[in-house]
Amino acid sequence: MEKFEINILGCGAALPTPRRLGSAQVVNIREKLFMLDCAEGAQMALRRTHLHFSHLQAIFLTHLHGDHVFGLLGLLSTFGLLGRIQDLHVYGPSDLQHVFQPQIDYFCNDSPYKIILHEIDTKTSQVVYEDRSVQISTLPLSHRIPCCGYLFKEKPTPRHIRRDMIDFYHIPISQINNIKAGMDWTLDDGTIIPNDRLTTPSAPVRSYAYCTDTIYRPSISEQIQGCTCLYHEATFAQEHALLAKKTYHSTAAQAAQIAQVAQVQQLILGHFSSRYLTEDQLLQEARQIFPNTTLAEDGRKIIL
Amino acid sequence: MEKFEINILGCGAALPTPRRLGSAQVVNIREKLFMLDCAEGAQMALRRTHLHFSHLQAIFLTHLHGDHVFGLLGLLSTFGLLGRIQDLHVYGPSDLQHVFQPQIDYFCNDSPYKIILHEIDTKTSQVVYEDRSVQISTLPLSHRIPCCGYLFKEKPTPRHIRRDMIDFYHIPISQINNIKAGMDWTLDDGTIIPNDRLTTPSAPVRSYAYCTDTIYRPSISEQIQGCTCLYHEATFAQEHALLAKKTYHSTAAQAAQIAQVAQVQQLILGHFSSRYLTEDQLLQEARQIFPNTTLAEDGRKIIL
Repeated sequence: MEKFEINILGCGAALPTPRRLGSAQVVNIREKLFMLDCAEGAQMALRRTHLHFSHLQAIFLTHLHGDHVFGLLGLLSTFGLLGRIQDLHVYGPSDLQHVFQPQIDYFCNDSPYKIILHEIDTKTSQVVYEDRSVQISTLPLSHRIPCCGYLFKEKPTPRHIRRDMIDFYHIPISQINNIKAGMDWTLDDGTIIPNDRLTTPSAPVRSYAYCTDTIYRPSISEQIQGCTCLYHEATFAQEHALLAKKTYHSTAAQAAQIAQVAQVQQLILGHFSSRYLTEDQLLQEARQIFPNTTLAEDGRKIIL
Repeated sequence: MEKFEINILGCGAALPTPRRLGSAQVVNIREKLFMLDCAEGAQMALRRTHLHFSHLQAIFLTHLHGDHVFGLLGLLSTFGLLGRIQDLHVYGPSDLQHVFQPQIDYFCNDSPYKIILHEIDTKTSQVVYEDRSVQISTLPLSHRIPCCGYLFKEKPTPRHIRRDMIDFYHIPISQINNIKAGMDWTLDDGTIIPNDRLTTPSAPVRSYAYCTDTIYRPSISEQIQGCTCLYHEATFAQEHALLAKKTYHSTAAQAAQIAQVAQVQQLILGHFSSRYLTEDQLLQEARQIFPNTTLAEDGRKIIL
């Protein structure tokens, strides 16, 4: 199966600690890397993963709170020192240019590559990136400032050829791509061999939804229906549900409700408040509603 | 002896790694903390020292290159979240306000304490901070952009009372502070008891010079003459002396020459280029000129 992995670089909330950075992840789809948020320390954590810095295609920021963006300048600056020449696109809510362009101009003024900032409208879902492997679209969220999540949908791969059948019907190599794409085959006597005798289905299409930071927003479920993996913020335990609402964050149970209604395959909880010594309580509260839940952890890799 | 300690949070050069952050230190003088530079990750490293965040009096930046300042916003923001209310003064070269005020206004807009930026002229030495424990002055350096080091000079402490002599001459408690300050004592018969019979000398005054980043600049030696401890950048080994000159950095040997001419008591090398797998070569080259040299290391504490 083609690679589709999520590398969690940091999954803490506002206060970073030596154990847990703020939010930052790298999604690896077929060795193309996409960064989600960029907390302080993200570049050091990225180095620890041994992923190739140069394979990073783009950075997607959910919102402009410090615990999601304070590592951006360091990362951009390091890319320059490492001699990157490929353009780098950074996506984020309005104010992205206002806040970061002056600092980029100051600190990366001799950068050998181009940094292109894209401000996105967080109120409606839209496709922000697309290539032959993946489509990335935004997921409107509700936080104290403009904020959106991101949904990664793998592009379908061709069906798998059944070598024995190709040989049996003497199908020429020139036709293989057509067969993979779903074409039937017609014998000299006019008999049609249906494609599903010549091929087996391709791997099911996988998807990943990254939802942080947000108040409980049930409408998310529609957009992420059947998702392979959902990362949802779970800043608070149920006992702090009022505080969650007040600060536009979610509880672990609310994250699990989203997962349940959306019928996702697995749920990863993250963005934990530093007030909890362990996140066991959050995990338990979520698992009562959605059993296939696990906790994010700095350095954890999730293979889809 | 009163506390005078240097906590090295980071001592790498431009490229931070998981092993080594950019430049950041905390000087602890009698439980008052002063930060020198503030590389990305400084707040997490500061947490590892178990020093009290709230004891931080001021931050002194040498220059506005990313590997010395990219941790500033995160630190300022965290102080706000921790409920700091005491003003915090940040000192640095020109452009400090232009570069950081807009970001502070954006990210720390609901900060419960005041952040006051002070731009300093890096061309002449001047006192930038003074209290009853310490005087901090700037050390002009030569780098690619305006840059200065900082010299910490402990204030002299009072002489130590000889309890036996005080009793012997029946000196009243009300006079003790005068005696500590150096006053002689006159007996009823007019005999003068010189102060040095009543007291022993106070501990010698200690000083710390932080010199990074700079090309080899021999004139530094005059200002840091006899210093207790000198931290001097040693970005390169002798084999890269030309590169050092070109990039306005120093070699380990040049740092040692400064230490030797200034007759400091000890030299700490830091700001190592990430090109060296170990800094043994740098240490050897320096020790040939100035034997009492050691290497900085992230997490190292130097007690003066």
